[in-house]
Amino acid sequence: MSSGPREIRQPGAYQFTFGPYAEPIARVARGETVVIHTIDAFADKLTSEDQAPSSVLGPYLNPQTGPIHIEGAKPGDTLVVKIEAIEATRDWAVSCLVPFFGGLTSTRFTATLQAPLEERVWLYKRQPNGNYAWRDRWEIPWAPFFGTIGTAPHIEAISSLSPGDHGGNMDVPDVTAGNTLYLPVHHPGALFYTGDAHAAQGQGELCGVALEIAARGTFTFDVIEGQAIQWPRIESPSEIMVVGSARPMEDAARIAYSELIYWMEADYGFDRLDAYQLHSQAGGLYVGNMVDTTYSLVAKCPKRYLPRAPAQGGKTPTSPPARI
Amino acid sequence: MSSGPREIRQPGAYQFTFGPYAEPIARVARGETVVIHTIDAFADKLTSEDQAPSSVLGPYLNPQTGPIHIEGAKPGDTLVVKIEAIEATRDWAVSCLVPFFGGLTSTRFTATLQAPLEERVWLYKRQPNGNYAWRDRWEIPWAPFFGTIGTAPHIEAISSLSPGDHGGNMDVPDVTAGNTLYLPVHHPGALFYTGDAHAAQGQGELCGVALEIAARGTFTFDVIEGQAIQWPRIESPSEIMVVGSARPMEDAARIAYSELIYWMEADYGFDRLDAYQLHSQAGGLYVGNMVDTTYSLVAKCPKRYLPRAPAQGGKTPTSPPARI
Amino acid sequence: MSSGPREIRQPGAYQFTFGPYAEPIARVARGETVVIHTIDAFADKLTSEDQAPSSVLGPYLNPQTGPIHIEGAKPGDTLVVKIEAIEATRDWAVSCLVPFFGGLTSTRFTATLQAPLEERVWLYKRQPNGNYAWRDRWEIPWAPFFGTIGTAPHIEAISSLSPGDHGGNMDVPDVTAGNTLYLPVHHPGALFYTGDAHAAQGQGELCGVALEIAARGTFTFDVIEGQAIQWPRIESPSEIMVVGSARPMEDAARIAYSELIYWMEADYGFDRLDAYQLHSQAGGLYVGNMVDTTYSLVAKCPKRYLPRAPAQGGKTPTSPPARI
Amino acid sequence: MSSGPREIRQPGAYQFTFGPYAEPIARVARGETVVIHTIDAFADKLTSEDQAPSSVLGPYLNPQTGPIHIEGAKPGDTLVVKIEAIEATRDWAVSCLVPFFGGLTSTRFTATLQAPLEERVWLYKRQPNGNYAWRDRWEIPWAPFFGTIGTAPHIEAISSLSPGDHGGNMDVPDVTAGNTLYLPVHHPGALFYTGDAHAAQGQGELCGVALEIAARGTFTFDVIEGQAIQWPRIESPSEIMVVGSARPMEDAARIAYSELIYWMEADYGFDRLDAYQLHSQAGGLYVGNMVDTTYSLVAKCPKRYLPRAPAQGGKTPTSPPARI
Repeated sequence: MSSGPREIRQPGAYQFTFGPYAEPIARVARGETVVIHTIDAFADKLTSEDQAPSSVLGPYLNPQTGPIHIEGAKPGDTLVVKIEAIEATRDWAVSCLVPFFGGLTSTRFTATLQAPLEERVWLYKRQPNGNYAWRDRWEIPWAPFFGTIGTAPHIEAISSLSPGDHGGNMDVPDVTAGNTLYLPVHHPGALFYTGDAHAAQGQGELCGVALEIAARGTFTFDVIEGQAIQWPRIESPSEIMVVGSARPMEDAARIAYSELIYWMEADYGFDRLDAYQLHSQAGGLYVGNMVDTTYSLVAKCPKRYLPRAPAQGGKTPTSPPARI
Repeated sequence: MSSGPREIRQPGAYQFTFGPYAEPIARVARGETVVIHTIDAFADKLTSEDQAPSSVLGPYLNPQTGPIHIEGAKPGDTLVVKIEAIEATRDWAVSCLVPFFGGLTSTRFTATLQAPLEERVWLYKRQPNGNYAWRDRWEIPWAPFFGTIGTAPHIEAISSLSPGDHGGNMDVPDVTAGNTLYLPVHHPGALFYTGDAHAAQGQGELCGVALEIAARGTFTFDVIEGQAIQWPRIESPSEIMVVGSARPMEDAARIAYSELIYWMEADYGFDRLDAYQLHSQAGGLYVGNMVDTTYSLVAKCPKRYLPRAPAQGGKTPTSPPARI
Repeated sequence: MSSGPREIRQPGAYQFTFGPYAEPIARVARGETVVIHTIDAFADKLTSEDQAPSSVLGPYLNPQTGPIHIEGAKPGDTLVVKIEAIEATRDWAVSCLVPFFGGLTSTRFTATLQAPLEERVWLYKRQPNGNYAWRDRWEIPWAPFFGTIGTAPHIEAISSLSPGDHGGNMDVPDVTAGNTLYLPVHHPGALFYTGDAHAAQGQGELCGVALEIAARGTFTFDVIEGQAIQWPRIESPSEIMVVGSARPMEDAARIAYSELIYWMEADYGFDRLDAYQLHSQAGGLYVGNMVDTTYSLVAKCPKRYLPRAPAQGGKTPTSPPARI
Repeated sequence: MSSGPREIRQPGAYQFTFGPYAEPIARVARGETVVIHTIDAFADKLTSEDQAPSSVLGPYLNPQTGPIHIEGAKPGDTLVVKIEAIEATRDWAVSCLVPFFGGLTSTRFTATLQAPLEERVWLYKRQPNGNYAWRDRWEIPWAPFFGTIGTAPHIEAISSLSPGDHGGNMDVPDVTAGNTLYLPVHHPGALFYTGDAHAAQGQGELCGVALEIAARGTFTFDVIEGQAIQWPRIESPSEIMVVGSARPMEDAARIAYSELIYWMEADYGFDRLDAYQLHSQAGGLYVGNMVDTTYSLVAKCPKRYLPRAPAQGGKTPTSPPARI
């Protein structure tokens, strides 16, 4: 009797940090394909346009499924996460305004003395064509991805609301089915987490809340041994990308493009300044989020500019020069 | 005997500021189509890969053609600049590294004690297919636009190396043929300038220098009377866009998206917070430049989300709430 | 036989994060005065000007003594840390340049393609007058403080290299003998850590490394029950202060001044906008560090502008309006 | 009949930009001492707490007296401005909240969708002791300085609301009587402007408006020939200082400290990295303004760390390495 891939659900409390301090909920073999279930960023508690988010939501947001131990991953390796499929496990999505959170309001960090914007909830319904409609006003095409995904940092436990060099809450639409994500490994088993699925999201995630959904993701895991990367990388059929996360936003841009250059230097034989030049004419640079504790930008290079075979025997993600 | 549109060439010295202090070089009627000739950002002086930019270039960069007086434009109006065509007037393009200038180096503003990167010049040749090739290494598709374009500010004279609410050195690839640019008018005749044509450019203009070309642009000018805008706007066949220019980069993002919301509120009847929500799910946000004295980001909304007819009788660009 | 206060030394490995995941090394009563011993930010391994920091230092920097459980402290309280005295436990101090770390170099976050500055070590000797001399070139007056000090965050474990709303690596010279530090409490016992003593430091901690010393600090702990604060506060004999930590630096400034306003509103009866006005004419704002993962700025108000008795019965540190 | 120094008053319209496009209102000899009269930043129009600033003030703020031609100053020289005295020419000062302007509100650049703070005016009266009192609530000590002061930039005309490498609206309290300001010279005669006198101001100028006064300043002008500086410098009896102006604020800090290092290298014989080290332990770094279009920070070094005689024959302000 045949069966689909193994399904992984959070057995107990969800996680609200990316860190090395929780016990793995599952162990996955190299090359294994599994389905991971996630709840939405509000723990599925925001279900009506009549709710006030601030009175419904608890102190922690963005629950993660994990950590998942990937067998064979060792510190200094790179974790390879092939995203095979993303499916919604309900027929609606929710977005909202949360006081002092978002791209066009003062926040806890960009603090002003002004009153907050009003709270508001938008509930979207999935349509027969797969789009998500808000009332009869507009329909957003289904373009799902995982907003939060990553591995455990060295020694820190980082809030699931923050992105960083471990991945985390990057809110990057290219973390989607058909693409492969590369993540640093700092612990045996890598300790992988994911959550915060989005039915769709604009670049910048302007109000801070995408089309939040509960979802099941199908992932295949692998490991590149002995190759360390500094920041998350993404490969699509047509592009290679790096996600840089920092404040101010120009620092995120600097990280993303410089790491992309180091990647092209190490794996595709580019001279460093030639790669710098090439991106000046052919690179892409968009904003994943402008709302989280740390902003995420994506730099990308079309694969048509890369030599057909990587220069160094297929070791795709390679470390940039060591930095303290 | 038929003839094409009038050709405008800079009669004397080129301009290195956007300001109200120079005499117009030409007067153009509302609705008139003209061809404007521009030289490249290095005044066509960088012609060989053997040159060191710092020893060839003078104290001023980015010469502009202008100012051009558009008849009928008055303070408080919006200037409409339809870009009909862009042609290169030579068969090569140049890029280079200039010391302490660019996205991945310390600069005059992001000052460090480190040594500069080496200077280097890349000369590209136009190919029969229209692409620009650097040696036999790579070809960049022809995707021309004007890097610098704008009107005279109120009372300031702003360096042609800077972008701002007057336009200027935005380095935004959407300022291209087929699109329409809207600019604020602060003086009778608007006092329009342009230059800095690029055969192509990556998002962010990473090293600070695109594929610089001499060019001729075909423009049709018009005026929307009595409608003031705060920041440059762009309309393509499929999208409306706003360019925000500021530092740090998140401020440019805030400007671009908030002005886009005010536009949708004033001209398309959107509730302000609904527009905020819509961009959260459907907006686009990319980096034009991460290298100039001020960064430029572009926020965009697909036209399919707009009511077919603007809400207020076609007065497309309308002022956001007044701000001091 | 009389004896001094209890001495607390780290019994095993030092801590490199501020978090709730380690076992307390000691329990201290409310009102108790104790001496806490700390090693320097390089774990006392940098001892000669002939060493290259990058080859001597391990993967983790800035070892902390802790966590220390303060009896009676509960989540929602404020921890009161009176700094009674700071003494060096050796007669030298060390500073150095670490590659890609510091205020005038590109870094892991402000990434450029430039080569790093050279590594260098400066060893200072304590003089009979208490000053610290570098060779015969200059003497720095003894002005000791703890660069890193704080409590455990809610659920995160934050690197001891980072400052934040929990305190941490703020590098603020006002954390000195004679002053009182107020810290948020998120866990029973508060879980207090400190380390990174400095014999002196300039504002901004420019190269990222102060006059690093091993030290013993004398502290008296207390608790203000039922009073939550959002960011660390400091009280000197003549001023009240708030430390804001964020990037970009203007966000740290906004945090520091706004929290100072909330403090004056809650405890001293100021109208919010009057407090805003008063700081505009009488406030102080200096840079603690411009080098860490997050910058720290200090806003201050002279006590002569405060009513003699706090408005609300001596409940000095009070929470600003709740924010998500 | 003896007489005091010559008095200079603006003969016609005040200036609202620093630029080379206006005719000098006076010519002053090298070594001459003159008195310059200035009106307040609101052109003396805000006189009552019952006024709403937004309805009283015109489109331009911060009127400047100038330009004043200093004889003998040539491009590439440094202008020396000794501030001999500052006197108020009326017995009151005014501060206020202007919508969308200030450090703790969203602004035209840090744009949010929130409502503005309320407008409010605070009128201060000069007391017999020289302090400025707001009602019976608080008194601010007299600590006058010129908020805006500078020379004409190369080719730009910069709003008098902006600071920059030409000086301008720096809002730095150390521009005060007894100190000497050094400014770059880009035009014959330097073209000096000043205005925006403050009876006092907190660091950061938090709400954006200090204690604004009409004033008369006594200045002695001189020129250091053949010595170019990149950013404004200040010398007090006990310190040397540099003002850096940029966004984000960390860039202003980088400018200020790096230029201070170049100064100590060129004029006092410091090794560059030793100066970097010295500032790490002894430097001062405070915020002048966190409210203008560009932020200004001041880095300072006590003179006791400088060799008694400058290293290069008294050529005090010397250029750092040329940068494009």
